[in-house]
Amino acid sequence: MNRIIGFCGGSGSGKTTLALKIKEALADRAVIVNMDSFYKEQIGKTYEERTKTNYDHPDAFDSKLFVKCLSELKSGKPTDIPVYDFTIHNRSNQPWTHVEPRPVIIADGILLFAFPEVTELLDLKIFVDTQADVRILRRMLRDVNERGRSMQSVVDQYLGTVKPMHDRYIEPYKAIADIIVPEGGYNTVACDMIVDALLRRLSTGKQI
Amino acid sequence: MNRIIGFCGGSGSGKTTLALKIKEALADRAVIVNMDSFYKEQIGKTYEERTKTNYDHPDAFDSKLFVKCLSELKSGKPTDIPVYDFTIHNRSNQPWTHVEPRPVIIADGILLFAFPEVTELLDLKIFVDTQADVRILRRMLRDVNERGRSMQSVVDQYLGTVKPMHDRYIEPYKAIADIIVPEGGYNTVACDMIVDALLRRLSTGKQI
Repeated sequence: MNRIIGFCGGSGSGKTTLALKIKEALADRAVIVNMDSFYKEQIGKTYEERTKTNYDHPDAFDSKLFVKCLSELKSGKPTDIPVYDFTIHNRSNQPWTHVEPRPVIIADGILLFAFPEVTELLDLKIFVDTQADVRILRRMLRDVNERGRSMQSVVDQYLGTVKPMHDRYIEPYKAIADIIVPEGGYNTVACDMIVDALLRRLSTGKQI
Repeated sequence: MNRIIGFCGGSGSGKTTLALKIKEALADRAVIVNMDSFYKEQIGKTYEERTKTNYDHPDAFDSKLFVKCLSELKSGKPTDIPVYDFTIHNRSNQPWTHVEPRPVIIADGILLFAFPEVTELLDLKIFVDTQADVRILRRMLRDVNERGRSMQSVVDQYLGTVKPMHDRYIEPYKAIADIIVPEGGYNTVACDMIVDALLRRLSTGKQI
């Protein structure tokens, strides 16, 4: 049985950076499954309608498919993961990504802990906790500098959906975390600790 | 160079339980140093005066001696630790405890993170975070059932000093923690993770 380590936390928390660093340290003994790949296929909706979807709400995700893929990887079977295309706000027509199971499955997602059927698959639940002002500043820099968005549009989206959904579907689930990592990937002490604990388990064959 | 792992958190957080479990798992490769042993010697004060000392304030601790003892253990030297007698609210006349250095030094204290000269000695800073209502309930049961205190005296002490000092000298220092463990010793997943990370370091000789 492989282990699934879940990383949850708000936008800009440093959660994905932490997941990537742990994957890098474990090399081919780990694989990352990002929940963003599991945004629902939006059949019959126009582009205009799709831009209005609330992507920070649990309903935006195909949690059934996500659970199926995680369960397969956990039980040592390969799986196929859909490809999401953010430019068209829909699932891509590209072939799904074939993923081989690894001893450590890293699940990464802002709403990871909001689905009980997902959390019961997780062997270790890590919440990445970064203050809201630091998170919005990271998001602002990324969206303006790397994605060509205007500052005003970032503010509107943040106050309109990102923040209220965070307060409702992310922050309350900190309570179910096994450990909380402040600052995410920027926290090298915590990152090293998680890696060392996993290396110990891989070398001794201990499940979790 | 030995490693010092610091456990900080409020009264009733489960911090000491966690420290003890980690010590138990590491057996003779670890030693616990409890900051409670370093309450100041209260020279020239009557018993009545000593009962009025604010034991939840940093000034109640002999931080200089604490730093000396931790530094000695960290650099591989044995040290001697004073004995505190809670029944007389003063340092005991008993001989000091001789402590041999170990690869892992576990420092445990409610105000551990409030002293910069202490935190700079810590290789890993773990904050045990438990909700205030859960903490006061644990404290109430302990003080009434095990220490023969009245409920009213527990309430008076809690609202008078424990809570205000917690809010001022414990809670703000959560921000400097490397990892946060909800529920302390009752959190077996986190406990196992810390133990495995330390076992890995002991087997590979890695500092931290």
